[in-house]
Amino acid sequence: MRTDTKHFRCEIDEGIATLRLDRPERKNPLTFDSYAELRDWFRELHYDDSVKAVVFGSNGGNFCSGGDVHEIIGPLTKMSMKELLAFTRMTGDLVKAMINCGKPIIAAVDGVCAGAGAIIAMASDMRLATPATKTAFLFTRVGLAGCDMGACAMLPRIIGQGRAAELLYMGRSMNADEGSAWGFWNRVVDADALEAEAQEMARKIAAGPNFGHMMTKTMLNQEWSMSLEQAIESEAQAQAICMQTEDFTRAYNAFVAKEKPVFEGD
Amino acid sequence: MRTDTKHFRCEIDEGIATLRLDRPERKNPLTFDSYAELRDWFRELHYDDSVKAVVFGSNGGNFCSGGDVHEIIGPLTKMSMKELLAFTRMTGDLVKAMINCGKPIIAAVDGVCAGAGAIIAMASDMRLATPATKTAFLFTRVGLAGCDMGACAMLPRIIGQGRAAELLYMGRSMNADEGSAWGFWNRVVDADALEAEAQEMARKIAAGPNFGHMMTKTMLNQEWSMSLEQAIESEAQAQAICMQTEDFTRAYNAFVAKEKPVFEGD
Amino acid sequence: MRTDTKHFRCEIDEGIATLRLDRPERKNPLTFDSYAELRDWFRELHYDDSVKAVVFGSNGGNFCSGGDVHEIIGPLTKMSMKELLAFTRMTGDLVKAMINCGKPIIAAVDGVCAGAGAIIAMASDMRLATPATKTAFLFTRVGLAGCDMGACAMLPRIIGQGRAAELLYMGRSMNADEGSAWGFWNRVVDADALEAEAQEMARKIAAGPNFGHMMTKTMLNQEWSMSLEQAIESEAQAQAICMQTEDFTRAYNAFVAKEKPVFEGD
Repeated sequence: MRTDTKHFRCEIDEGIATLRLDRPERKNPLTFDSYAELRDWFRELHYDDSVKAVVFGSNGGNFCSGGDVHEIIGPLTKMSMKELLAFTRMTGDLVKAMINCGKPIIAAVDGVCAGAGAIIAMASDMRLATPATKTAFLFTRVGLAGCDMGACAMLPRIIGQGRAAELLYMGRSMNADEGSAWGFWNRVVDADALEAEAQEMARKIAAGPNFGHMMTKTMLNQEWSMSLEQAIESEAQAQAICMQTEDFTRAYNAFVAKEKPVFEGD
Repeated sequence: MRTDTKHFRCEIDEGIATLRLDRPERKNPLTFDSYAELRDWFRELHYDDSVKAVVFGSNGGNFCSGGDVHEIIGPLTKMSMKELLAFTRMTGDLVKAMINCGKPIIAAVDGVCAGAGAIIAMASDMRLATPATKTAFLFTRVGLAGCDMGACAMLPRIIGQGRAAELLYMGRSMNADEGSAWGFWNRVVDADALEAEAQEMARKIAAGPNFGHMMTKTMLNQEWSMSLEQAIESEAQAQAICMQTEDFTRAYNAFVAKEKPVFEGD
Repeated sequence: MRTDTKHFRCEIDEGIATLRLDRPERKNPLTFDSYAELRDWFRELHYDDSVKAVVFGSNGGNFCSGGDVHEIIGPLTKMSMKELLAFTRMTGDLVKAMINCGKPIIAAVDGVCAGAGAIIAMASDMRLATPATKTAFLFTRVGLAGCDMGACAMLPRIIGQGRAAELLYMGRSMNADEGSAWGFWNRVVDADALEAEAQEMARKIAAGPNFGHMMTKTMLNQEWSMSLEQAIESEAQAQAICMQTEDFTRAYNAFVAKEKPVFEGD
């Protein structure tokens, strides 16, 4: 995977890619360029198994302030419908690319997590926060609807329909305690422990079984709108595939030998 | 919108319609007539943008005790299947009309909130309660199933499948603390603050952007059974539409001028 | 219903069937035989109304440790794809049979509740736990994916998508407090009260209305992937059917006579 990205920072170490937006002086807003480059990066990741887990981190005490008012919102107010749809599809394509990349993503969120930034956190598989985190789906504040990049589908499944409705209509900030009690955050940790916690979680993921994790991620998405019977048949097939990986045999052999399995991803 | 309703009270003030059932001496049961008139009122609301938010309030310390035993349940026990289906479809049509009316609904619930009353609360977008609120899906107590007016679809999405199953099978009362911890209530406030809180929430909603709120409500319903990919494409379209409203430009201009935007709903 | 089961214990008393796995010295692992016999037993239950509620209990301080490593996992590592799919479909068929049996199932979970054991708890309608309960979806630990027997569909609807993702990727244990706060457990009770609580809950269920309970269970499953509009129409039909049962009239008559209704299930 490329690490020479221009519009966000990317480091890869021992199978863990750590991304972060890089305009900390402005709380890391998104621009047309960073949307597009993130989308392309996650699309490439689908085909690259050298990266096994992704941490989407914060920078300068904030995660992301959403679409830049001057660089995105201003131009949008002057666009034709065709251009607007191209933009909203590009932002949606970033979420699709994150969901389809095949590797678990951990959002490590400090400070401001707003608008499209809150969507990026939501499109991640797991989410860590700090006590200072403020998360707002503030589309309504700029005259738009709460349905942005899949928010009306994803947020109710994470925190429930009633709480999601309030956040999307009111655009109000969800604090760390609420987000933790409601299941938005998997854990709240001190700001100086955030990066280490996220890396530790990513290390556990990266240790495998990575083929299995890819299949878990695939099915968590695929089964979203299946009937329960369809989901059960789909999992019967998916798990049977996993049972023919060497990692399954490696785990069994390690168990018999009373050792810790070493997974290799195939 | 009509305010001369016969079977429930309706007041409209500054774009906020406040409804309440009006038989407080019997804890506000529903009748064939009030079901039908509520359904018709919400259906009309779909085409009327002078009302921007709805508060469904309590009356005399109670929200609604559900279908009246003498006026509804008695007659139902004597009906033909054709008549029964006409009744259950009418009650379901009330939920559909609430969901499709295009304006956010806030239920302000005090005291008894039972049977079809609990469904009306559930079909609202946001829900406020008081410490005395008792909510029961008590269909099972009258020999029926928990599947009434969409309960088996809606309740699991608000409070989770396991808790919903217990309430629907057991017919037991959910108290205010449970309902708050489980995400059924957006907030629990003292009884004497209930009305003011609900009106304040409605005022914020009514301030707009109302086209955006209508679209948020539409998509929260539409995406219910979509795949995640379908939901993302649908939101790309829905938000592109919102980006061509004047309210979006108004918000941008207000931001640049460091003012608070004044939304006009188009 | 048969109580002469070979691979699990089954007692039936006053309409309540109590099942438990019976290898307490090994924390009650599942085997090929117990999977198949459980599947067959629940399939038969669909056609037998003498049993009105099921308690799936613990044994020797534990619920179930999942698929036996020596008797299941070892052989699986040597199977062909055709044989593997036959196995994963059999395990999925157990979940389908539990969901389609028409009677509410209460899992009474003490101690270890792991792998397929956690799925059995999840496929039950309600779940009681003790403070010592440890629940783990540990498929990932044996080199497999979290998508097993419907887990990626069921777990997010019970505890939310974010928490489900963590448990399925990390394979970590969920303790009783977490499971309670997240809605996995309906209640946590002391170990020596577990059996009595579960039986009491089952007695209330068994008292009926059993036709209504069957319909509630049917619709909680059926509506899983319906649109909200479809769900409302389906419930209009389902509830109209229930309104033609004698139990509905019995409840009304009892109410008028100020008595407690005695349901008979038709």
